[in-house]
Amino acid sequence: MTLTFIHGGTVVSATGSQLLDVLVDGETIAAVVQPGSTALGADLFAAADAVIDATGKYVIPGGVDGHTHMQMPFGGTEASDTFETGTRAAAWGGTTTIVDFVVQTPGQRLQDTLGAWHQKADGECAVDYGFHQIIGEVNDESLKGMSELVSEGVTSFKLFMAYPGVFYSTDGQILRAMQSAADLGALLMMHAENGIAIDVLVEQAIARGDTAPYFHGTSRPWQMEEEATHRAIMLAQLTGAPLYVVHVSAKQALEQIATARGNGQNVFGETCPQYLYLSLEEQLGAGFLDGTGGFEGAKWVCSTPLRSRAEGHQDELWRYLRTGDVTTVSTDHCPFCMKDQKDMGIGDFSKIPNGIGGVEHRMDLMFQGVKSGRISLERWVEVCCTTPARMFGMYPRKGVISPGADADIVVYDPAGHTSIGLGKTHHMNMDYSAYEGFEIDGHVDTVLSRGRVIIDGGAYLGSAGHGRFVKRELSQNLI
Amino acid sequence: MTLTFIHGGTVVSATGSQLLDVLVDGETIAAVVQPGSTALGADLFAAADAVIDATGKYVIPGGVDGHTHMQMPFGGTEASDTFETGTRAAAWGGTTTIVDFVVQTPGQRLQDTLGAWHQKADGECAVDYGFHQIIGEVNDESLKGMSELVSEGVTSFKLFMAYPGVFYSTDGQILRAMQSAADLGALLMMHAENGIAIDVLVEQAIARGDTAPYFHGTSRPWQMEEEATHRAIMLAQLTGAPLYVVHVSAKQALEQIATARGNGQNVFGETCPQYLYLSLEEQLGAGFLDGTGGFEGAKWVCSTPLRSRAEGHQDELWRYLRTGDVTTVSTDHCPFCMKDQKDMGIGDFSKIPNGIGGVEHRMDLMFQGVKSGRISLERWVEVCCTTPARMFGMYPRKGVISPGADADIVVYDPAGHTSIGLGKTHHMNMDYSAYEGFEIDGHVDTVLSRGRVIIDGGAYLGSAGHGRFVKRELSQNLI
Amino acid sequence: MTLTFIHGGTVVSATGSQLLDVLVDGETIAAVVQPGSTALGADLFAAADAVIDATGKYVIPGGVDGHTHMQMPFGGTEASDTFETGTRAAAWGGTTTIVDFVVQTPGQRLQDTLGAWHQKADGECAVDYGFHQIIGEVNDESLKGMSELVSEGVTSFKLFMAYPGVFYSTDGQILRAMQSAADLGALLMMHAENGIAIDVLVEQAIARGDTAPYFHGTSRPWQMEEEATHRAIMLAQLTGAPLYVVHVSAKQALEQIATARGNGQNVFGETCPQYLYLSLEEQLGAGFLDGTGGFEGAKWVCSTPLRSRAEGHQDELWRYLRTGDVTTVSTDHCPFCMKDQKDMGIGDFSKIPNGIGGVEHRMDLMFQGVKSGRISLERWVEVCCTTPARMFGMYPRKGVISPGADADIVVYDPAGHTSIGLGKTHHMNMDYSAYEGFEIDGHVDTVLSRGRVIIDGGAYLGSAGHGRFVKRELSQNLI
Amino acid sequence: MTLTFIHGGTVVSATGSQLLDVLVDGETIAAVVQPGSTALGADLFAAADAVIDATGKYVIPGGVDGHTHMQMPFGGTEASDTFETGTRAAAWGGTTTIVDFVVQTPGQRLQDTLGAWHQKADGECAVDYGFHQIIGEVNDESLKGMSELVSEGVTSFKLFMAYPGVFYSTDGQILRAMQSAADLGALLMMHAENGIAIDVLVEQAIARGDTAPYFHGTSRPWQMEEEATHRAIMLAQLTGAPLYVVHVSAKQALEQIATARGNGQNVFGETCPQYLYLSLEEQLGAGFLDGTGGFEGAKWVCSTPLRSRAEGHQDELWRYLRTGDVTTVSTDHCPFCMKDQKDMGIGDFSKIPNGIGGVEHRMDLMFQGVKSGRISLERWVEVCCTTPARMFGMYPRKGVISPGADADIVVYDPAGHTSIGLGKTHHMNMDYSAYEGFEIDGHVDTVLSRGRVIIDGGAYLGSAGHGRFVKRELSQNLI
Repeated sequence: MTLTFIHGGTVVSATGSQLLDVLVDGETIAAVVQPGSTALGADLFAAADAVIDATGKYVIPGGVDGHTHMQMPFGGTEASDTFETGTRAAAWGGTTTIVDFVVQTPGQRLQDTLGAWHQKADGECAVDYGFHQIIGEVNDESLKGMSELVSEGVTSFKLFMAYPGVFYSTDGQILRAMQSAADLGALLMMHAENGIAIDVLVEQAIARGDTAPYFHGTSRPWQMEEEATHRAIMLAQLTGAPLYVVHVSAKQALEQIATARGNGQNVFGETCPQYLYLSLEEQLGAGFLDGTGGFEGAKWVCSTPLRSRAEGHQDELWRYLRTGDVTTVSTDHCPFCMKDQKDMGIGDFSKIPNGIGGVEHRMDLMFQGVKSGRISLERWVEVCCTTPARMFGMYPRKGVISPGADADIVVYDPAGHTSIGLGKTHHMNMDYSAYEGFEIDGHVDTVLSRGRVIIDGGAYLGSAGHGRFVKRELSQNLI
Repeated sequence: MTLTFIHGGTVVSATGSQLLDVLVDGETIAAVVQPGSTALGADLFAAADAVIDATGKYVIPGGVDGHTHMQMPFGGTEASDTFETGTRAAAWGGTTTIVDFVVQTPGQRLQDTLGAWHQKADGECAVDYGFHQIIGEVNDESLKGMSELVSEGVTSFKLFMAYPGVFYSTDGQILRAMQSAADLGALLMMHAENGIAIDVLVEQAIARGDTAPYFHGTSRPWQMEEEATHRAIMLAQLTGAPLYVVHVSAKQALEQIATARGNGQNVFGETCPQYLYLSLEEQLGAGFLDGTGGFEGAKWVCSTPLRSRAEGHQDELWRYLRTGDVTTVSTDHCPFCMKDQKDMGIGDFSKIPNGIGGVEHRMDLMFQGVKSGRISLERWVEVCCTTPARMFGMYPRKGVISPGADADIVVYDPAGHTSIGLGKTHHMNMDYSAYEGFEIDGHVDTVLSRGRVIIDGGAYLGSAGHGRFVKRELSQNLI
Repeated sequence: MTLTFIHGGTVVSATGSQLLDVLVDGETIAAVVQPGSTALGADLFAAADAVIDATGKYVIPGGVDGHTHMQMPFGGTEASDTFETGTRAAAWGGTTTIVDFVVQTPGQRLQDTLGAWHQKADGECAVDYGFHQIIGEVNDESLKGMSELVSEGVTSFKLFMAYPGVFYSTDGQILRAMQSAADLGALLMMHAENGIAIDVLVEQAIARGDTAPYFHGTSRPWQMEEEATHRAIMLAQLTGAPLYVVHVSAKQALEQIATARGNGQNVFGETCPQYLYLSLEEQLGAGFLDGTGGFEGAKWVCSTPLRSRAEGHQDELWRYLRTGDVTTVSTDHCPFCMKDQKDMGIGDFSKIPNGIGGVEHRMDLMFQGVKSGRISLERWVEVCCTTPARMFGMYPRKGVISPGADADIVVYDPAGHTSIGLGKTHHMNMDYSAYEGFEIDGHVDTVLSRGRVIIDGGAYLGSAGHGRFVKRELSQNLI
Repeated sequence: MTLTFIHGGTVVSATGSQLLDVLVDGETIAAVVQPGSTALGADLFAAADAVIDATGKYVIPGGVDGHTHMQMPFGGTEASDTFETGTRAAAWGGTTTIVDFVVQTPGQRLQDTLGAWHQKADGECAVDYGFHQIIGEVNDESLKGMSELVSEGVTSFKLFMAYPGVFYSTDGQILRAMQSAADLGALLMMHAENGIAIDVLVEQAIARGDTAPYFHGTSRPWQMEEEATHRAIMLAQLTGAPLYVVHVSAKQALEQIATARGNGQNVFGETCPQYLYLSLEEQLGAGFLDGTGGFEGAKWVCSTPLRSRAEGHQDELWRYLRTGDVTTVSTDHCPFCMKDQKDMGIGDFSKIPNGIGGVEHRMDLMFQGVKSGRISLERWVEVCCTTPARMFGMYPRKGVISPGADADIVVYDPAGHTSIGLGKTHHMNMDYSAYEGFEIDGHVDTVLSRGRVIIDGGAYLGSAGHGRFVKRELSQNLI
C-alpha cells in the first residue's frame, strides 16, 4: 500500500484546531501524530511514499454534500450533470462524498429504482457516493421496500409535500411512511412546501400574465414553506420519525424547526449556499419582468425559491446556522442549462426546470462565512463535513480526520483565492453559474479521496469509477 | 520519556466513537492509531513501557469539572475538602482537571487573592487545576486587575447577584464588569439569584418559624432564579459580554437561556448532577420539618436550591441537556460536613453553609444518563469533558483524545459497577454523601493525568503536587 | 305595542355591572334607565303593561350560540333535534339566538341549499336564528355564490379539513375560498383536523381491533388538530381572510391561535362546554373498551374529540378563555340519540355519528365558571352573548342590553339551582345527556325573545315560528 | 336639577356604536333612549333644559387619563401645570378625569402626603380627579399606610425601579410592597427601568462628553426597560400582585408583558401618545448633538425615553395596542417649560427635568389611530376611557355612557379638525408643544363634566373647583 504523509497543517475538526500530522495508508488514515514526536520510533517522512506539505494550511475532512441530483429526470428533461461530470466538479471543490437521490415514480419497485441508479453511477464517479431514496408512491409495497433498502445501505427516504402529480405524497401517505421510518430508525427527509396550494397560486399567476421567472418565487411564498414544515414536524412528532427538512429557505420555516428542536424533537434543518448568499431580488434585474432584459431570471429558479433580502431571510439563516438549528449545508445541486433546458419556461415560469448547480462551490462559499465572521472555523467543518457524515450514517468513515477513517482529506489554503464563474473554476456541466463573479478568499489546494490525490495544484488527477458506493448506517446524529 | 500504549478500547469523542489505539509519550498523547495498522512500521506494543488493555471499554478524555470550591471560606467556616483531598477524590472519579474559584473580598487586590490561591493549591493537587476569579468588589482597581489576570491564564470572572453583603454586586457593578469582560473577550460567570429579594423571603420565613432546611429552598423560589438569569442575559446583551450562568436548577431559568441562545447570544448554561438527580423533596423526609426526624435535610442545602420534582424541573433539565441549552455539567463541589458545619444552622436554615460535594461522582452520575437513554454517549463526553475544556480555554490541551493533548485519559468500563456512599467509593472529606445509596452502571477503571496512571484497579497511584496550574486561554466555545 | 318594564336587576355587560331598569317596547329595548330617576317625568311602573321584578338577579343579553346543527344530515342519519325542538331547548337555557349551518354537498348551488335550510327553519323556531354556510365543494360557482349569500345576510363560510369524501376541502380549495372571503370581508370558519392523516389512523385502529368509542378520540390525536389549525392560520395569513376556528379542544391548537393573535392576525378560537368540562377519560369507564360495560362511551363521541384530562387540556382551555384567545363559547350542538343513531357504531367507532347536544346548557355551564372563579361575570356575558353577536355581525341587535337592540333578555338568578339530566331540565330531543348529573349554581328564570316572554318560572310560553331569521352583517369583531 | 338632552349622535362604547339619545339629569346620566321612541311617554326635547344636537357626531364617555403629574416636584423644579391649568387643558382635550400621583418622599407618612395633595388639588380642578400614591420609601409604616389609603379611595401604588436616591425601591422593597398590594387587592404600578445600571451609563456618557439631550435616550437603552419589566413581572408572579407597567416605550418590554398576559397573569401595559407618534430621532435634528442647532432636543426628554423609529418600536406598539397587550393609553403628562426648566440641563442632559406634556391632546392623537386604520373606533374608546376607568376602579361612574354614570360626556366631531401647537390649541402651561405642527382629523366639540358643559364651541365654560376627588375602588379589570 501507498503511504502518504500530510504534515505541517492545522487539522480542523468540529471541536477545534491543532497542528497535526496525518499518515495515510492506502485508502485509510492510519494515524494522527503530534508533529515532531519521536515516540513512534519511525521517520514518517522517510517512510512515506508521498509527502504533502500543508504548512500554513487547513487539513480538513473531505466535504460531504448530502443533497445532489445528478442526471435526475425532471420536468421533461434531465439534470445536466452526469454522475461523472458532477462528481468531478465536486472533487474540484473539495467535496469527496455526495449523497444523491434515487427516484421512484409510481408503479416502480423501490428496489428496482435503486438498481437503476446503481447502474447510472457505477463506474462513473470521481468521489464516493451514497443514495437517498425518493418514494414517489407510498403504498404497501414501497413501505415494505424501505426495510430492504436500509439493509442495503440506503437509510434515508425523501417525500415531497410539493409537486402534486409528480412526487407529491398525501398527509396519509406521509404518516404511513413516517411510521415505517420510525420503526426502522431511518431518517425521513422532506421537501416541505404546500404544493396543493402553490399550484393554485401558480395557475393564478400565469392567468394574470405574471409569467416571468420572478413569479416562480412569488407564487411559492414563505407561508407555504412554513406551513408544510410545521405539518411535517407534527406528523413526525406523532409517529416518532426523525425528520430532516431539506433546502430550507424561509426564516419562518427555520423558526418552526428551531422550536421543535428546542422541544427535544429529532428535527433537522438543511440549507444551501444559494439561500445564504442569493435572494429573490436577483430575479428582479432590469427588464427581467417584461422579458426585455432577457430570461436571466431563470438562472435562479429553484424550489424552495430564493427569498427576499428585504425580508431578511439570509441574515436569519446565517443566525440559525450559528445556533445549530441549521444542522447541515448541502447544495441541492440540480443543474440545468439555460439553453434547451431553462428556456423551456420562456413565457411560463412553471415550465422552467427547477434547480441550481453548486456542488463545486459549497466548501468555498461556506468558508466565506468564516472569513466574514458569520461562523467559526470549526462550525464550517461541522456543517459541511462532520455533521452530514453523522447525519447520514457514514461517520467515522467520512467526515472526520481520524485513524480508521477513509482518507478523504482536503488541504485548504485560507490565504488562497478562488474566482467563481464560467471559464474560471467552472467544471460543472452548466452553461452559466448562479454565483458568477463571486470572489472567494480561500482555495482548495489538494484533495484526497480514499487516499488517492485527485486534485492537486489545479490539476485533476482522479478518474471516473474511483468513487465507490457508500453503504450507510442509520443516522448517528439524533438528539 | 515513558511510552504508554492504550489499546483495544473505543475512543469516544464529542462526535463519535471508534476502536482506536492511543500512544502516550510522557505527559502527552503522541499519536492516535488505527488498531492493527502496520503503516507506522513500528510495534507499539513492544515499544511501549506500559500497555493498558482497554478492550471492551471506553477511552475518554479525562473529566473537566469547571466548578469547584476547595477549602473555600464561606459562612464562617471553610469547605471541607482541601485542594489535596478534593483533587484526589476528583481523580478517583475520573476527573483530571478542575477549575476552582479564587475569592476576592472587598478591599483586596484581585492579583493578591490569586496569589493566595496559588499558594493554597501549589504542591497539593492530584490533578491539574485552573482558576476562575470571583470579583467580590467591582471598582476601578478590580476592573483593571481583570486584564492582568487574563494574561496570567485566569480568563473567567464570576459575579454574584445573590448574597448581599458578601459577594453581591449591584447591577451597575455587573454592567461595568461585563463591559470589561467584553473588551477582554473574557467569560463572565454569574450566580443568578435575586439575593436582595431572597433576603426578604428568608427573613420572613425565619420570622414565621419556618427554620428547617427545607425552607432554604422555598425561600429561594424559581422566580428569583429565572429573574436574575434574565437580568444577567440582558446586561450581557447590552454589553456584548459572553455569559456563563452557573448551577442552573430551575427549568424557567433554562428557558430564558434557551431563548437567548436561539437569538444567537453567547449565553451558556451550566447545571450539576444534584439538579438532575435530586430534588427539593429530599428535604421533606419524615420529621424533617419539625426536627423530630433530625437535621438530615441540611445535607442538600445548596444555592441555587434543589427544585421540586412535582414541578418537573429535573426532566426539563435533562431535555435542555439533550438540546444543548445546558452546555456543561459541573459539580459546584462545595462540601461541608454535617458535624460542626451544616449543624451550625440548626434552628435557622440561613446559617447552614451552602453546598453539596460531588466532584468524585460526576462522570459516573452522568454516565447513568447514557445508560438510561437520556443522552448519547457522545454527549456525555461533550458536556463533561470536551465542552468544559473549550468553554474555559483549555482545548485541545484538555478535553479531547488527540495527539499533542495532555494525556489525561480515563478508561471507563460500561460493564462495571459503582456504589456511591460512605465506606464505599467515598474519598471526599465529608461525613455524608448527598448521593448515598446510588448504584451506578459503569466504573472508572484507570485514570491517567498527564501520562501518569493515578488510578488503577481500585488503587490511587497519584501524589499531591502532581497536578499543575493550567494557564487558560479565552473561551473557545462562543457561538 | 306592549311595554315591559324590567326593574331592580343588575344589568351585566361585557365591561361591567350596574343596577339598571330596562324598558322594552314591543320587540325592542326602548330605554335603559337609572333606577328611581324622575328625569323622564314618567312612571314606568305605571306605564308598563308588564313588570318583571329582577331584584337580586342578573339581567343579561340573551345567549347567542354561534354553532348549532339542527336536523343536520350526517353519517346516514340526521341530528335528532329539529329546528323546533332545538330552539325550544335553547330558549329553556337562556339562548335567544342560534346560528346554524346550511350544508352544501357537491353538485348543489349554495343558494339552493340556503333556500332549503330556510324552508326547514321557517315557522319552526322558538328563538331567532341565523345561518352560516358550509361549502362542501369549492369551485368557481360556489365562490361566486359566496358574494350573493353575503348580501342575503349569510356572512360566514365554513370549510372542513376533516372528513375526506364528505365535507373535506383541499388546501387549494381552502386557499381560493379564503381569497374570496378576504375580498368580501367575510369570516372563514374552519373545522381544523387533518382528516387525510386521521383516516389512516382510524383505519389502522379498526384493523387492530380497537373499535370501542374511546378509540375515536385516540385516532384523532392533538397533533392532528394543532397541525390543521396552524395550516389554516398560515393560509389565512397569506390571503388576509379573517379566520374563526371552531370547537377547539387541544391546548396546542389554542397555542397556535394565541400566537397568531399576538401577531395581530384576525384569528379567533371557539371552544365548547364539553371541552371545558368533559374529557377523553369519560370514555374509559369500566368495561367500555371491551364492550362489557356497554356502549356508553359513544355518548361523548364528537369531533374534535374530548381531550385527555391527564394532559391538562381543560385547565389550559379555561386559561385561554380568560386571556381572550378563546374568543367565544358555542355548543356545536349536534345531538344524536344512543338508540338507532349512536349505536350504529357498535363494533366500529367510525360509524358512530359525531356530536354532542348541549344548546340547552351553555349559559348555565359557563356560569359555573364564574362561580368557581375561572372567569369574571363580565367575561361570561362577553363570551356567551356579546362577542358572538359581534363576531357574527349581529351587534347591537343582539348581544347587548341597549336601547334599539332586540329585547332578547335573560333574567338569571345566581342564587338559583339547575340540575342537568334526563327527566330534570332536559328539553332536547336526545335520549341521554352528556352532562347527566351536573348540578349548577344558577338558574335561568325568565327569557324574553324580541320582547316576548318565552320562558317564565319554569314554563315555556313561546311558540314555534316566533323566531325569525337574522340577516347578518360582516363580523364586527376584527382586531 | 337641570335636564340635558343629547340627541342624534352615535354613542360609541368599547363594544360597538349605536344611534342613541342620552338624557342627563343634573350630574348623572338618567337614561339612554332609542331615538324616536315613544315608549317613555315623554317628550324629552321639551322636557330638557338644554338640548345638544350631536347629529353626525360621536358621543363618547369623557376621557380618563390615568397618568398625570400636575405641579409635581422633580429635579429641583416643579411640573409647570398646576391642577388648575392642567385640568383645564385636559377639559379642552376631552378628558374629564385624571388620576394624578401623590408623592411620598422618605421620612413622610403616606397619609400626610395624600393630605398635602388633596390640599393642592382641592378647589382647583376643572374636571374630576383621583390619586395614585407613589411610595418613595417602602417600610413597615408605609406598608401599613397602604391599607388606610385603599379605604380612602387611593387603590393603586406606584414604585420606581429607576431614579436611585430619589424614588428608587430595591427589589426587596418591591417584594414587600407587592405582598401588601396582593393582600389588599390593590394595583401595583411600576416605572420599569433599571435605574442602577442606567446611572452608570449616564455617568459614562457625561464623562465621554455626550451631554446633548439625545444621549438621555441612548443611556437608557431598551434592554434596561425590558429587563426591569421582566423583573417586575416575576416579582408580581411570586407575590400575586396585579401589576400595571406605566409608560412602556420599548417593544421588547411589551413582548414581556404580552408573554405574562398569555400565561394568565394580571399584568397590564400602559403606553402614551409620545411613544406611538414620536421617536428618538426627534432629538437628532440638525445641530442638536453639538448644540449648534440649539437645545431643542430637550423638548422630548422623558423617561422611559422615546425609542428609535429605525428599530420599529412605534409600529410594534400600535400592534400591541390592537392585540390588547397595551391595555391603556395615558399621557404621563409631566410638563416642563424650555425656559428656566428644561434648560437647566444645557451641557448635561441628566439635569433636564424628565417629562412631556400632553394631557390636552390624547383623545385627538388616538383618534388619528382610528382614522389611519390602526385601531377600531371601539378600541379608541376602550383604551382612552372605558378600560382606564375599570382599571382604576371608577367604572361605571366613569368610562361609559350608561344611566347612573357621571355625565362625563364628549361630543366628538369626526369631520372636524384640530391643529396642535402654540397659539393654536395649546392651553397647557408650557412654552412649547411636543407635537407642534400635528394636524388632526377630528375635533372635541362639546365636553360635559358631571352634567355641566365645560367646553362648547371653542369656549371654556368650566371653573376651577368644579372637579371633585373620585374615591376609587379596587381595579375592576383583572383577568
